[in-house]
Amino acid sequence: MIHIALDAMGGDDAPVETVKGAVLALKDYPITITLVGREDCIRKELSKLNQKESDRLRILHASEVVEMGESPAQSFRKKKNSSLRLGLDMVKEKVADGFVSAGNTGAFMATSVLVLGKIPNIDRPAIATVLSTNNGPVLLLDIGSNVDCKPHHLEQFALMGHYFASLVLKVENPKVGLINIGEEEDKGDTLVLAAYPLLKKLPINFVGNVESRDILTGKVQVMVCDGFLGNNLLKFGEGLIDVFMGFFKNDCQQSWISKLGAMLLIPALKRFKKKFDYEETGGAPLLGVDGVCVVAHGRSQAKAIKNAIFRAYQESESNVIATIQEAVSQ
Amino acid sequence: MIHIALDAMGGDDAPVETVKGAVLALKDYPITITLVGREDCIRKELSKLNQKESDRLRILHASEVVEMGESPAQSFRKKKNSSLRLGLDMVKEKVADGFVSAGNTGAFMATSVLVLGKIPNIDRPAIATVLSTNNGPVLLLDIGSNVDCKPHHLEQFALMGHYFASLVLKVENPKVGLINIGEEEDKGDTLVLAAYPLLKKLPINFVGNVESRDILTGKVQVMVCDGFLGNNLLKFGEGLIDVFMGFFKNDCQQSWISKLGAMLLIPALKRFKKKFDYEETGGAPLLGVDGVCVVAHGRSQAKAIKNAIFRAYQESESNVIATIQEAVSQ
Repeated sequence: MIHIALDAMGGDDAPVETVKGAVLALKDYPITITLVGREDCIRKELSKLNQKESDRLRILHASEVVEMGESPAQSFRKKKNSSLRLGLDMVKEKVADGFVSAGNTGAFMATSVLVLGKIPNIDRPAIATVLSTNNGPVLLLDIGSNVDCKPHHLEQFALMGHYFASLVLKVENPKVGLINIGEEEDKGDTLVLAAYPLLKKLPINFVGNVESRDILTGKVQVMVCDGFLGNNLLKFGEGLIDVFMGFFKNDCQQSWISKLGAMLLIPALKRFKKKFDYEETGGAPLLGVDGVCVVAHGRSQAKAIKNAIFRAYQESESNVIATIQEAVSQ
Repeated sequence: MIHIALDAMGGDDAPVETVKGAVLALKDYPITITLVGREDCIRKELSKLNQKESDRLRILHASEVVEMGESPAQSFRKKKNSSLRLGLDMVKEKVADGFVSAGNTGAFMATSVLVLGKIPNIDRPAIATVLSTNNGPVLLLDIGSNVDCKPHHLEQFALMGHYFASLVLKVENPKVGLINIGEEEDKGDTLVLAAYPLLKKLPINFVGNVESRDILTGKVQVMVCDGFLGNNLLKFGEGLIDVFMGFFKNDCQQSWISKLGAMLLIPALKRFKKKFDYEETGGAPLLGVDGVCVVAHGRSQAKAIKNAIFRAYQESESNVIATIQEAVSQ
């Protein structure tokens, strides 16, 4: 059975929501889970849920916690007994098949590279995110771990994205696009201009440049960009969603007609929100480190944790890392 | 009276919508307009609207048109009698105070630099766009004319943005932010890290790094970024707005309750859309060339043209270019 380690202490609402999320995941998926963190805290949360340790739900005590604002380098040096470190150690030692944390993302990334190492021939791991569209899932990478990319980094992101979309998202022959300010081959900044021919040579379905207006149309299934752009796009998207939701909260409260209209739309709006909800997307895979690592949103509630665990389970089951390893070794 | 030259032939629906837009603008603003383009076409449109040439509405015949896909360099060399060229010549010769075109943006930018020249000490003109937020207007620049920026380009964008927001948008002591993946001073790629200290030294209200989720909150009034990022953000925003509108067009058509709800929201939605509509924002000022140039959206209808003319009028009246000239000469 696939075994996932969960950082029970990571995230704004840990350990309450992390423990809840683990319990939910156990009900739905054929997995075992180790909760890594302060044993007393975890036991307290489990008892609130009338749950006990079992063969499928274990606890690994970790006396330290990496805080949100902590420097990745410092936490690595000083906190050798943090839940983050011990969880990653489990993956390193093949005791666990994957690790999920909603804690300090910078520390997660840095520590995962130091503990697990990178896949040979991958220079920089990327954080990817799965977006939902009316035409199926779209993988966007990198969303923030790499600023100042070189062309061959984008090439590696494209290759990893191809395999993740194929094997984990189960998209047959996924279309891979390079995010650019125009679709013409001669458009773009120095980076994408130099990356284009590299992506073209890869044994993947590279469809060329794609404008960012098409990120959510599902025109392609993998969108490649450097982490500075990807992170900004994602955050701008979050800001825009807030503006849209503000329409229902504010603009629609100005007359009883629009209040009634907004009320009637609540069920449709709930379905719509679900499509774009990070709680549903299942966490962001960290691709390029030598082990399954899934970054959950800092604000994750139980459902988001559950879905991030599911992502780690899917990723472990699909053997995507071994496939990437084989592909880049050639 | 301020005199605006309008490229009557530029844009997807020119000259029908451009001529209509000019007529609308004349009604609302104390300006004179010269319609630059094929005289017979323009006269035909004017007669449809029961309008004639007058002291306030003149025609300048231009035998050529720069097409949408045309190379900027080629059109400059070969089409010396295009509406674009003759309109810019009018500004150069001080016959007109400003020029508006919804035609080929690349050609507009390149030709404006070649005809009008750049403001001394400004290395690269930027295209700016005015976004509406619940907390007033926000100027975002550059949105696409400059990929591969150097730190001093961002510095110049910040300075030009400051003066545009102060004098044209009438924001007192506008807050200027640098778009980045985090607010901390040590975050970002090489470009923004190097630009930060330059912006800090400017005699403007620089508030530091701002995340792109805050572009639409109105937290600052000027948002500075390189053209590759700005263009991508804008296009991603357009894509997201399509998704949001798709909610009303598709998701709300699945039951009679949600259909009714959507119907009741039409007035509120119209007001909401107006806030984000490029038709209302009045075109994108091209800052850094030595003359007032406003880029209108290629899909501009009459109202968008009217608002772009108004933007050119405001810009001329505010004397913002002379102020920028003075500021950068120091």
